[in-house]
Amino acid sequence: MEALELGLPVVGVVRTLDLLGILAFALSGAMLGVRERMDVFGVLVLGFATGLGGGFLRDVLIGAVPPAALAQPGYLAVPLLAGLAAFFFHPALERLAPLIDFLDAVGLALFCVTGALKGLAYGLSPVPAALMGMVTAIGGGMLRDLLAGRTPVVFRGELYAIPALAGAAVAVAGVSWGAPSWAVAPVGAVLALTWRLLAMRRDWRAPLPRFGS
Amino acid sequence: MEALELGLPVVGVVRTLDLLGILAFALSGAMLGVRERMDVFGVLVLGFATGLGGGFLRDVLIGAVPPAALAQPGYLAVPLLAGLAAFFFHPALERLAPLIDFLDAVGLALFCVTGALKGLAYGLSPVPAALMGMVTAIGGGMLRDLLAGRTPVVFRGELYAIPALAGAAVAVAGVSWGAPSWAVAPVGAVLALTWRLLAMRRDWRAPLPRFGS
Amino acid sequence: MEALELGLPVVGVVRTLDLLGILAFALSGAMLGVRERMDVFGVLVLGFATGLGGGFLRDVLIGAVPPAALAQPGYLAVPLLAGLAAFFFHPALERLAPLIDFLDAVGLALFCVTGALKGLAYGLSPVPAALMGMVTAIGGGMLRDLLAGRTPVVFRGELYAIPALAGAAVAVAGVSWGAPSWAVAPVGAVLALTWRLLAMRRDWRAPLPRFGS
Repeated sequence: MEALELGLPVVGVVRTLDLLGILAFALSGAMLGVRERMDVFGVLVLGFATGLGGGFLRDVLIGAVPPAALAQPGYLAVPLLAGLAAFFFHPALERLAPLIDFLDAVGLALFCVTGALKGLAYGLSPVPAALMGMVTAIGGGMLRDLLAGRTPVVFRGELYAIPALAGAAVAVAGVSWGAPSWAVAPVGAVLALTWRLLAMRRDWRAPLPRFGS
Repeated sequence: MEALELGLPVVGVVRTLDLLGILAFALSGAMLGVRERMDVFGVLVLGFATGLGGGFLRDVLIGAVPPAALAQPGYLAVPLLAGLAAFFFHPALERLAPLIDFLDAVGLALFCVTGALKGLAYGLSPVPAALMGMVTAIGGGMLRDLLAGRTPVVFRGELYAIPALAGAAVAVAGVSWGAPSWAVAPVGAVLALTWRLLAMRRDWRAPLPRFGS
Repeated sequence: MEALELGLPVVGVVRTLDLLGILAFALSGAMLGVRERMDVFGVLVLGFATGLGGGFLRDVLIGAVPPAALAQPGYLAVPLLAGLAAFFFHPALERLAPLIDFLDAVGLALFCVTGALKGLAYGLSPVPAALMGMVTAIGGGMLRDLLAGRTPVVFRGELYAIPALAGAAVAVAGVSWGAPSWAVAPVGAVLALTWRLLAMRRDWRAPLPRFGS
């Protein structure tokens, strides 16, 4: 969503990937609404909240209001279309679940980096900026789960937040050490994407607290 | 809450209706707290959250902070009184449920229009402004349901958000085409109110996703 | 978190108590995550949300963004350490529960006063400023319970919000009547702390609505 800070040459690519990430997040939210037998409005709201919620949360916290998605109305079309697609074509979309999971990992990887760079651009120090990147990447999914009345899956062992934090940290560290953002953004995003895809494929889980036997 | 943009002659009327809307929303929240056997504080918080939550959400997203209800302390008295009334007189209020439902529809109709016009006044484009109108109208009820630990009723077939979006869209379209806000606001509000009342009376439901037999 | 308005001589003391309050809140959140068998990330998020959530909510509502805890990175270390401590040493921490409850009451007492004074400093009138103090004190715990999927305990008879509101009201009233904040802050904090500790010790409960027999 914050492609502009990355320099003009890559804006088109990043914006396209950004919209794909929103699309994947919105589809995951809307499909949950369908599975929970919500009405068309519930499906659409879950799509919007999942696709745009992380960015909204970040923008409200750093004072970048109105959020980018409200200031650039084109961004609203993507979750709208995702919600309608889920509502009408959910049996077909269930078969595309692996593709949606892949796009979701792409969204995670992009949002953590663009969110962290936007935090830096609004004057945050490196550590809070990296946290804002993670919040951007996982906030939509957390909001989706809260609205659907379940504990966020990100708390239940799914290895999701750590790759996002790692990607954000790499981007922030690179910029803090003087590297241009167009150079560090892909490194952070590829790290997060690779880690997330490996975690999905090999079923890596986040550690649970130990209880004595 | 944003009567000022509507021109002086109608300020008194709109403000009165606005407070009635907050009153109805706050009563619906506080009565849910009573039914859930919450303590006096839970009842009050549900009243405040339902009466003022939609406006708070809108104001935070468009950057109009502190929210109007915090800057105009008179607005805090209405949900406070609603919460206390629900706590002490809930058996009598249960008998007034049809009246509260009617006031709730009035609140929905007013909030969608004033929310959308406030969005325009803060520089949003028409489509996001209409969405902000809907958020203003339904946000309080969604917050109420989240705090009470149930899935928002607006996701469960209740025809509630669509009339709000329609009213907001009419108001935004009118202003975008050059009409004065004092003229378009009543049209949008009456449309939303009529649609909502008809939906309640005839039990119109929002469509659900279809699952193959 | 807003020690600066209180005058230099007491900054060190208030900041230390402030961090102790965040520590106690974060521990209570992280320990709930452990008991709910969340993964390490869920435990950490509950720690952060409980320790910093009330202040974030207040800062977003009054327009003080980015929130103090993001602008002063040192504050992030406390909930991080609390979350890790809960994850690794929860059996020992369960035995320290009385100490954590005491620190939690200290946090409540400090947050209600500093939150209210910050509200005044951002131009709120006395009544909304006192409400913001209460929101600061109880917001983290409410967020903790929402994320963990349970009804906020503060709605279930626990006498928690009323002492916070009383402490905030005393501080706001004192400042409104011309007293210096370094003088009224301790009075409000001691009132809230005493009331909360007595409520814990004597099991005072907030009143519930009555239902006819």
